[in-house]
Amino acid sequence: MLYDLTVVQFSKMLKNLSNILEEGRAFAHHKKVDMEVLLNARLAPDQFNLTRQVQIACDIAKIGVARLTGKLDSVPKHEDNETSLDELQARIASVLDYLSGFSEADFANAAAIHVSQPRWEGKYLMGYEFAIENAIPNFYFHVTTAYAILRHNGVDLGKKDYLGAMPFQS
Amino acid sequence: MLYDLTVVQFSKMLKNLSNILEEGRAFAHHKKVDMEVLLNARLAPDQFNLTRQVQIACDIAKIGVARLTGKLDSVPKHEDNETSLDELQARIASVLDYLSGFSEADFANAAAIHVSQPRWEGKYLMGYEFAIENAIPNFYFHVTTAYAILRHNGVDLGKKDYLGAMPFQS
Repeated sequence: MLYDLTVVQFSKMLKNLSNILEEGRAFAHHKKVDMEVLLNARLAPDQFNLTRQVQIACDIAKIGVARLTGKLDSVPKHEDNETSLDELQARIASVLDYLSGFSEADFANAAAIHVSQPRWEGKYLMGYEFAIENAIPNFYFHVTTAYAILRHNGVDLGKKDYLGAMPFQS
Repeated sequence: MLYDLTVVQFSKMLKNLSNILEEGRAFAHHKKVDMEVLLNARLAPDQFNLTRQVQIACDIAKIGVARLTGKLDSVPKHEDNETSLDELQARIASVLDYLSGFSEADFANAAAIHVSQPRWEGKYLMGYEFAIENAIPNFYFHVTTAYAILRHNGVDLGKKDYLGAMPFQS
């Protein structure tokens, strides 16, 4: 289940984010403003701009999955130097490609793995709690904030753009 | 696990949201503005205001859990007529009280239950997919947007206010 919650759902949401950013590009084109204006937009002076929100969403996805599966060595590196939407889209694509290499079997020990970070000073979270209380809410926070920045600037987005298609049955 | 992802984690986040709203109240008091100014704030003219974001977060939590456990008849009703922060806090408290009545055992059939809504025109989602692809991302969307509205208006909030305490071990 942690596989579905992270690899599968993070991938779906990153594709939604990619589409949302393209809506931003179309809006900028229509308004005859540089896309960089939107990429540099933020909701508060001391909050990260749109570019950084996308970078962080990507990082939470790739590093979260790597931590849960004990594969931190395999994480693709990104230098946080994207200045254009094309470069941000390439970063999203790179993370999607990385996530596509995981399977349910990689998560066999994920719930009980010890997740630690240097700034946690030797303390750790169990993988199960790391996923549910940290990685998942944190990931949605940054995707939603990216959406909110574009929405605040006038881009015509709706909840469906954020949630994506639902697997309805009948 | 769906119990932890919904009942437990939604409860934690609603408490965080309650605390975030109190930060808004303290900010309004300090700035000598009515809290209603913040409650009516929004990020875009055609996006819901802060009050509505809180109402919807509450509804996704209570109705999501009720749907997953087949207990839609037991959901507390709210008239969406809150005009003050005290009334919104009472609504959050009411949902927290409702959620506290559920246990892991209530979720025995949650993954396979058929979740439907009138506007889905007879189609349904499996409970597992409803939780992961709809209720959870939708819930975080509205909590994050509430946070973003306050942040945009100058309230001094940080990621810890949103995520809450982590169950660190050492």
